[in-house]
Amino acid sequence: MRDHPDHLPTYEDMLAAHERIKPYIHRTPVLTSSYLNDLTGAELFFKCENFQKAGAFKVRGASNAVFGLPEDMAAKGVATHSSGNHALSLSYAAGRRGIPCHVVMPRTAPQAKKDAVRGYGGIITECEPSTTSREAVFAEIHAKTGADFVHPYNDPRVIAGQGTCSKELMEQVEHLDAVIAPIGGGGMISGTCLTLSTLAPQVQIYAAEPEQADDAYRSFKAGHIIADDAPDTVADGLKVPLKENTWHFVSHHVTDILTASEDEIIEAMKLTWKRMKIVIEASCAVPLATILKNPELFRGKRVGVIITGGNVDLDSLPWMQ
Amino acid sequence: MRDHPDHLPTYEDMLAAHERIKPYIHRTPVLTSSYLNDLTGAELFFKCENFQKAGAFKVRGASNAVFGLPEDMAAKGVATHSSGNHALSLSYAAGRRGIPCHVVMPRTAPQAKKDAVRGYGGIITECEPSTTSREAVFAEIHAKTGADFVHPYNDPRVIAGQGTCSKELMEQVEHLDAVIAPIGGGGMISGTCLTLSTLAPQVQIYAAEPEQADDAYRSFKAGHIIADDAPDTVADGLKVPLKENTWHFVSHHVTDILTASEDEIIEAMKLTWKRMKIVIEASCAVPLATILKNPELFRGKRVGVIITGGNVDLDSLPWMQ
Repeated sequence: MRDHPDHLPTYEDMLAAHERIKPYIHRTPVLTSSYLNDLTGAELFFKCENFQKAGAFKVRGASNAVFGLPEDMAAKGVATHSSGNHALSLSYAAGRRGIPCHVVMPRTAPQAKKDAVRGYGGIITECEPSTTSREAVFAEIHAKTGADFVHPYNDPRVIAGQGTCSKELMEQVEHLDAVIAPIGGGGMISGTCLTLSTLAPQVQIYAAEPEQADDAYRSFKAGHIIADDAPDTVADGLKVPLKENTWHFVSHHVTDILTASEDEIIEAMKLTWKRMKIVIEASCAVPLATILKNPELFRGKRVGVIITGGNVDLDSLPWMQ
Repeated sequence: MRDHPDHLPTYEDMLAAHERIKPYIHRTPVLTSSYLNDLTGAELFFKCENFQKAGAFKVRGASNAVFGLPEDMAAKGVATHSSGNHALSLSYAAGRRGIPCHVVMPRTAPQAKKDAVRGYGGIITECEPSTTSREAVFAEIHAKTGADFVHPYNDPRVIAGQGTCSKELMEQVEHLDAVIAPIGGGGMISGTCLTLSTLAPQVQIYAAEPEQADDAYRSFKAGHIIADDAPDTVADGLKVPLKENTWHFVSHHVTDILTASEDEIIEAMKLTWKRMKIVIEASCAVPLATILKNPELFRGKRVGVIITGGNVDLDSLPWMQ
């Protein structure tokens, strides 16, 4: 298996990524809700990556990896393992470039995400819903195809791509005091750290995580990576552990990691649908859940909230189960 | 009961309405979907009134009526009967002006709408789900309070207010060939006719209606108003019949009225949620359902689609029943 590029991405990598991916992504809108502002006592600015191509921010990092490949490597295609949105996004980007995309996906991933991956032309191989199984099945596929491995979050090209989201947010909203995003493997948070540590180092960066998959929280408190094998949470995008590159950004630049229970996440998800009229995944309701739980941290502040995706199985909503 | 003002609203009334209501409404965004463009062969521009204050376009007409009242009349408050969003919107506008709002509402209206009316301070009296019962109960409330009657769609102040939506749409999107909106009582369609017949008379105006509540369609074909007493459709905002003022606009300016079945409406609603990541009511899925059903009418055209509201009972979604 080809190693990940072994450097950390730089601010210039992020700027180059933004130029490279612009033809393939949306500059997503920032929405506000006077109801949620009143409820939290903060001014919240929701960066709506649920409106992004392929329905999630992950298309930024995936497009940066795909369109940065030299021709000879691109011909063999790309491959990844992913709990959903990275798979979708890499399939989308590979489809735009006209190269194959191999995806190893847990058999328990939402049917909507599997259908969407296939809709974009991705080739799925299923694995068990654990990190161990996922990595074993992937090694086999990777060896067989020779495709370029685009890790869903630890790849520097992916982190640089995700950082373009905060760059846009800073262009769209002035004088933010803080930005909050969900944390799973840490790709979005790392990109946020990469961008803000140069562009706006005074802005606080919070990561939000499900209590039932709180490995990043425990890592942050312990000072080293703690990985769980198969955590279970409604926020299905946030089950994966930190890796060395994302740990670098999390440990150096994150202000704090906050957690929320399953009920709090589902409540915040439903509240967002109800009041903002937008379809968001459970994963991206975790930031609002933690803001509602820790009002003293955010009251009176201007807070960017990254809505990471909107790929929901509409036949299976968590508040109806 | 005080009669409705007996004039038809003018283009100048619409312009005055826009100035009057601007502090109380959002200039809602226009969204597009490359997926839905590919699917329909048209270029669709969705005017997202689901993001409007109180979650629906009706706040435009309601605010125009409420803020146009002289002080002495305003003191007695306003009153209406409504299947939902007009009730919400009038309650919101009355709340902003600090005057009472009396609402007669069918007992079968979605719980989410009843809760929201009360949340905005509206005072609800329930009636049976028929036009006859609704008008009888309303007469009683109206006599008791002396409040100003703001009819949900036949009131010229309301029609002028709804017309501001198409004015914004024409400012936001160039060279539209057609605009399509759902039709119930005809307030939005009448406002659209009022605005476009002066501002852009070359633009075709389509109305979209559920087959199971197709009184406007039958009226249009017959050349006179046909009213049903208690039609049943998932598009709960579209059960009411045309009245003389809305009939005037429909009969003079509408290009055609198209209908869709319950299944087609639900399918279009779910498709919009899934691909556009926005929460819309069944009522505003009727236009997309009719576009999908009549592709030859819209192929190659630039079409404005008015998404009228997003007040959905999230515990009771039509595709889960």
